[in-house]
Amino acid sequence: MGTFKITVSYDGTGFVGWQRQAEGTSVQGLVENALRDLDEREVAVVGAGRTDAGVHALGQVASFALERAINADTLARALNARLPASVRIVDAEEAPDGFNARFGARTKTYRYRLWNADVLNPFERCYVWHVSGALDLDSMAKAARLIEGRHDFAAFQAAGSRAATTERVIISSCIKWHSEASSPPSDLIEYEVCGNGFLRHMVRTIVGSLVEIGRGRRTPEWMADLLTWKERARAGPTAPAEGLFLVAVEY
Amino acid sequence: MGTFKITVSYDGTGFVGWQRQAEGTSVQGLVENALRDLDEREVAVVGAGRTDAGVHALGQVASFALERAINADTLARALNARLPASVRIVDAEEAPDGFNARFGARTKTYRYRLWNADVLNPFERCYVWHVSGALDLDSMAKAARLIEGRHDFAAFQAAGSRAATTERVIISSCIKWHSEASSPPSDLIEYEVCGNGFLRHMVRTIVGSLVEIGRGRRTPEWMADLLTWKERARAGPTAPAEGLFLVAVEY
Repeated sequence: MGTFKITVSYDGTGFVGWQRQAEGTSVQGLVENALRDLDEREVAVVGAGRTDAGVHALGQVASFALERAINADTLARALNARLPASVRIVDAEEAPDGFNARFGARTKTYRYRLWNADVLNPFERCYVWHVSGALDLDSMAKAARLIEGRHDFAAFQAAGSRAATTERVIISSCIKWHSEASSPPSDLIEYEVCGNGFLRHMVRTIVGSLVEIGRGRRTPEWMADLLTWKERARAGPTAPAEGLFLVAVEY
Repeated sequence: MGTFKITVSYDGTGFVGWQRQAEGTSVQGLVENALRDLDEREVAVVGAGRTDAGVHALGQVASFALERAINADTLARALNARLPASVRIVDAEEAPDGFNARFGARTKTYRYRLWNADVLNPFERCYVWHVSGALDLDSMAKAARLIEGRHDFAAFQAAGSRAATTERVIISSCIKWHSEASSPPSDLIEYEVCGNGFLRHMVRTIVGSLVEIGRGRRTPEWMADLLTWKERARAGPTAPAEGLFLVAVEY
C-alpha cells in the first residue's frame, strides 16, 4: 500500500491525448491498464496536465495509490514492460499519502517547436509546426516577454472553455533560435513558457499569435493589447498540437 | 529533356526500403510514381545505395532523365507536393547526360545510432538500436579504427550474398559519444563510416561486432582478426535496421 509519483515521456502521435476517452488510445488509459495488471484491481491515475491529441510529453507527472507493496524502481520497470515503446516511465518514486499530481503542481513548463524553412525535415514532421516564409524573430522574442507576469489570459483560451478564473502567472516566456553561425545550423525555433497554470489551448494560441507577429502582420505590442482586450476572436490561430511538448511539472 | 540528380531524405520507418518490391511501399516507387505524374511516362530512377527496410536517409542520391523541360527548383517543389511528408527532396540539380547516381558514386557515408541506457527515449524508438548495460566505448572506438584502409570485408557481408569482390576501402570509421560533462548529457552513441562502397549488411554487421567488443565479450583486436578470417559466422550479429542512416553520397 502506497502512493506513487511517476514521470512519463511519450510521443503523442496517434494518441487521443493524455486523458482517457470513449474512443481511441489515451496515455492515461495505457498506464491505468498496466497498473490494473500489476495491482489486480482498477487504479485511477491523476495526470498533472491534460495534453491534447498529438501533444507530446518529456516530463508529464502522474500519481496513484497501489494496494500491493512494490519498490519504485521495480514499479517503473514493470510498467515499461507493459507499455508500448512510445510511452516510457522515466522516473518513479514513493510520494506522501494524499499526493495529487494535478492539485500539487506549482508550475509547468511547455515547449513549442517551429520549423522555419521551405522544406520540412521528414524526421521532424510529427514534432514541429512547419512555418515557411521569413519570420521576424526579434519581434517574436520581444512579444513573448510581454506576457510574463500575472495577467488575465482570457484571449488565449479555447473558445467555449469555462475555467473558474482566467488569471494565470507566467514566470518566463522566451523564443530561442540558432543563429546562422551556429553549428550545425538549424531551422528550428523553440518557444518555452513556464507558468503556474495554463488554460485550454493557451500555449498553442500564444504561439499562433507570436507567428502572426513574426510574419509582420502585427506589432509585438499587440500581444499586450490581447491581454487587455480579453477576446479570443482577436488573438491568432491555435497552433497545431504536434509542435507542443509538456517539458516538466514542478512541485 | 534532361538528366537530374536529386538528394532525398527519408524516414525509413514503414517502408520496404529504397528499392521497389513486389509488395509494400518503397521510396524508389514513390519517387517514380511522382515522376510519372510529372513526365506523363514511366521514369526509371537509379538510387546511389539500396537502403534496407527500416533504414533511413539524410542524403540518398538518385538520378533519372525527363522528357519534359523543367527547372530543377520547380522539379523539387513538384516532387515534394506529390510525396508523403516522410520523404523529402532536399536538393535537385541538372546533371550531365549519362550521370548515374549508382555508378558515379565515389564514396558513401553512413551513421549508426545506439541508445545506451536502461530506458529508451520514446522519440528515438525508430531511430536507434537500444543497447542497455555498460559499454566500453574506448575499446569500441579503438576497434572501429582497425577497419580503416583497403580490406576484404567478406566477414561483414550478409550470408548468401554474392558480390563480385568483397574488397572495399574504408576512409574513416569512428565512434563518437557525448561525455558525462557534455550539456545536455546524452545516452546516444554514434558510429560513422565513410568508404568507397559497402557490401550488403556491412555497416550493420560492423556495428553488431563493435557492440560485442563494447560488452567485453571480445577484444578490439578481434575486429582485425575478422578481416583476416573472412567468415561471416565468426563476426557479431547484424545490428537492427532502424539505427542506420545513409548520410551522404559523394561524387
